[in-house]
Amino acid sequence: MPEQKSPPPLQNATLCQIGFVTRDAGRMARKLTEITGIPAPEPILTDGFEKARTLYRGNPSQATAKLIFFNLGQVALEIIEPIGGPSTWREFLEKHGEGVHHIAFTVKSTKTAAGELSGFGIPPVQSGVFEGGSYVYCDSEKDLGVILELLDSTTG
Amino acid sequence: MPEQKSPPPLQNATLCQIGFVTRDAGRMARKLTEITGIPAPEPILTDGFEKARTLYRGNPSQATAKLIFFNLGQVALEIIEPIGGPSTWREFLEKHGEGVHHIAFTVKSTKTAAGELSGFGIPPVQSGVFEGGSYVYCDSEKDLGVILELLDSTTG
Repeated sequence: MPEQKSPPPLQNATLCQIGFVTRDAGRMARKLTEITGIPAPEPILTDGFEKARTLYRGNPSQATAKLIFFNLGQVALEIIEPIGGPSTWREFLEKHGEGVHHIAFTVKSTKTAAGELSGFGIPPVQSGVFEGGSYVYCDSEKDLGVILELLDSTTG
Repeated sequence: MPEQKSPPPLQNATLCQIGFVTRDAGRMARKLTEITGIPAPEPILTDGFEKARTLYRGNPSQATAKLIFFNLGQVALEIIEPIGGPSTWREFLEKHGEGVHHIAFTVKSTKTAAGELSGFGIPPVQSGVFEGGSYVYCDSEKDLGVILELLDSTTG
């Protein structure tokens, strides 16, 4: 049966975030504050599996990370320091070194958009929930060299 | 003499672009068109040294690249396929593989902002001119894992 392709999954989606992985979120945040003048907010420690329901490559994961967000208007810079458990953050950091791990788009439904992206050869690699929303990372690494994140919240 | 630090060089600067390096601009552009629905514009071939006045690590360079821009509103995605000559594009691609090479900010004066960033340990690595503006890539790789680009044009 021929593969059914949906309309473009990110049609009219808004680019809302650029996510950096790092070995030291504090160091990267201090440099960003120096050059942008934006004070670094307090780091957020992500929840473990019990609360975040993190799935990584199909399996529950205790993936946690320290996050620091810099709001630049329409777009936020997210600094991610992997802490525990297997995750796309840690995998990417070990493979490529520090740098941009993902670009994120706000969508109406992460589940719908992730299903559609799969039809274009970009399957989910990690997903979870947080206070106020949910996310899915989709594995566009072979196509773009970075991950695509789908977010159904505008808070991050 | 203690180093004189300027105000934050990117204070109130607008994030305008995310730049990807790739070995095949056409392939990456086709995938972006599939998932965003945005038609890929014709590639642009950058000028050689005679016109672009490209400096790379202090020396004139015949650095050229094929560029394809996707306009996502405030932010453009720039796809860069290095063609000839030594460049930060080729260096980054060889070191990290495909992925995000830079994030770009629109500033009033690339020369002024580049001088200020140098004072924060982020020196120029490549610069040049194009029709309607000029750019400076500043070497923030050790701090952010990617390059910072300063642009004094809003056209790209």
